[in-house]
Amino acid sequence: MKNKVLALLKEQSEYISGEDISNKLGITRAGVWKNINKLKQEGYHIEASTKKGYHLINTPDILTPEELSSIIHTEILGKKICYYEEVDSTNEVAKGLARAGSKEGTVVIADKQLVGKGRLGKIWDSPSGTGIWMSIILKPNIMPAQASQLTLLAGLNMCEAIQRVTGLDCKIKWPNDIVVQGKKVCGILTEMSAEIDRINYIILGIGVNVNTKSFGGELSHATSLSVASGKNYVRRYIVKEFLQLFETDYMRYKDKKSIDIFLERYRASCITLHNDVKIITAEREYKAYVKDIAQDGSLIVIDEEGAEKSILSGEISVRGIYDYV
Amino acid sequence: MKNKVLALLKEQSEYISGEDISNKLGITRAGVWKNINKLKQEGYHIEASTKKGYHLINTPDILTPEELSSIIHTEILGKKICYYEEVDSTNEVAKGLARAGSKEGTVVIADKQLVGKGRLGKIWDSPSGTGIWMSIILKPNIMPAQASQLTLLAGLNMCEAIQRVTGLDCKIKWPNDIVVQGKKVCGILTEMSAEIDRINYIILGIGVNVNTKSFGGELSHATSLSVASGKNYVRRYIVKEFLQLFETDYMRYKDKKSIDIFLERYRASCITLHNDVKIITAEREYKAYVKDIAQDGSLIVIDEEGAEKSILSGEISVRGIYDYV
Repeated sequence: MKNKVLALLKEQSEYISGEDISNKLGITRAGVWKNINKLKQEGYHIEASTKKGYHLINTPDILTPEELSSIIHTEILGKKICYYEEVDSTNEVAKGLARAGSKEGTVVIADKQLVGKGRLGKIWDSPSGTGIWMSIILKPNIMPAQASQLTLLAGLNMCEAIQRVTGLDCKIKWPNDIVVQGKKVCGILTEMSAEIDRINYIILGIGVNVNTKSFGGELSHATSLSVASGKNYVRRYIVKEFLQLFETDYMRYKDKKSIDIFLERYRASCITLHNDVKIITAEREYKAYVKDIAQDGSLIVIDEEGAEKSILSGEISVRGIYDYV
Repeated sequence: MKNKVLALLKEQSEYISGEDISNKLGITRAGVWKNINKLKQEGYHIEASTKKGYHLINTPDILTPEELSSIIHTEILGKKICYYEEVDSTNEVAKGLARAGSKEGTVVIADKQLVGKGRLGKIWDSPSGTGIWMSIILKPNIMPAQASQLTLLAGLNMCEAIQRVTGLDCKIKWPNDIVVQGKKVCGILTEMSAEIDRINYIILGIGVNVNTKSFGGELSHATSLSVASGKNYVRRYIVKEFLQLFETDYMRYKDKKSIDIFLERYRASCITLHNDVKIITAEREYKAYVKDIAQDGSLIVIDEEGAEKSILSGEISVRGIYDYV
């Protein structure tokens, strides 16, 4: 009922009386008042006048299905959105949903993660109301080894989405961190359940620091879109832009099953390409020059002895002009 | 207590009196009688004489931790065995345990599976008491794309274990079916939970038709060790042999991370190699000759136009002299 009241408020550019709402929705005046209060608590700025009724002044920066669905134009991604004020980890929730049979394209989104997960078992700081903490269930008909290509694509699309919404100059640090002014604003954690020759499901977990204002000591390599620009952004416009871009490219990728559909755009946005980097493996550290990105998404580097090597996603850490792992 | 009574019975080559058991274990004579009855119900053949007491004549063909642990000599694999008389699927149980943090080497084994899983979503018929339905939790530090190598190794080791225990001439149909007299006796379903660059856990699900006597119409390509030989086999000796062989090779594999440690033995047991096969893809069927098995475990085939191709695990179905998919 709350959402129906909200829909009525949104329809009106002017005030709508409590009586009108009451009549249209078949609820009591007390019921109208109760639902208006709920909306106010969620952050909706609603002006109330005893004479004229109610008027929606401003919609808060929240990522509820109601607010997202009305602006996102997609066929599959985000057709079902599961929103939580607080979860341990959106990836864990999404995995549970996928196991229980949730469809491809289901999006899990939380205002706050208590134990947000980063790559290699690291914690991803996910404070309330300031970022995009979201996981998408995908079920592509590809081999497990190709999943790394999808994670490159998601990184590219999020980079493009942030650029479109904020105008900030952002780049991809291979494989899929997004950096602004030399610091990380977005990370992607892709997890999958697979057999040897088919994927049961992929969980694409994406974290974007949007309006976060401060970062702890350990996060000195991190920034937010807001810190970088001095402005605040409405998170749902970034989500909208990303899901729309990603849906288009993801469909093309599933059709061609080739990185070709986006490799040129990825190259153009990738700060790692044609740069000197430091490669850190379990055995040693060495400097190298990044010559190219291969068809399978791996880095092709030339080491100090002039030998060419293929670096697979995540086997190493790359340090370049952005001096963090 | 039942297991303590069993241990006492096993210690004796002759009869042991009810009074002796009662004294040694600090339980009543009625308690002794109750536990003896439990063991009889499980299939232990125990002779009871009012004068002489109890004598274990025969141990049934059961796969309980008690029976397995006493014969298996391994450091990691099967150190913890979770036995069920009946489960939906040992792979599903093992996945749940792995998510909950169970250690590498944990083995889930069931006397009967209600919904045993085969590859590509097929059902694996798993009737009570006649086969080995088992899943092993592994946590190797390898890339997801390398998991297919482990599944080749498991197929090879099970092939070797069956040969050692039964003396039957069994072969591997690439990638990891085991065939005897042209029919399938063992299948392996490997599932994994992974990030792009690391494996959270692998579930190695293995089904062996040991003493199964009849196969439905749809299973005309299947047989059992018993049907093939006219003999019955004690399942736990096959489990023991497999776990011991696999542990040794798995440790070497984790160390070298290369198929080299077993590729020659695999080649020697592989019926697909150096044979004409039919390759069935989503698009077409074609005949080819299998020239080699590559370092990554893929098949190298030559098609009818003389072109060389690499066939990845499971991307295709192979038909050769064993005419089933």
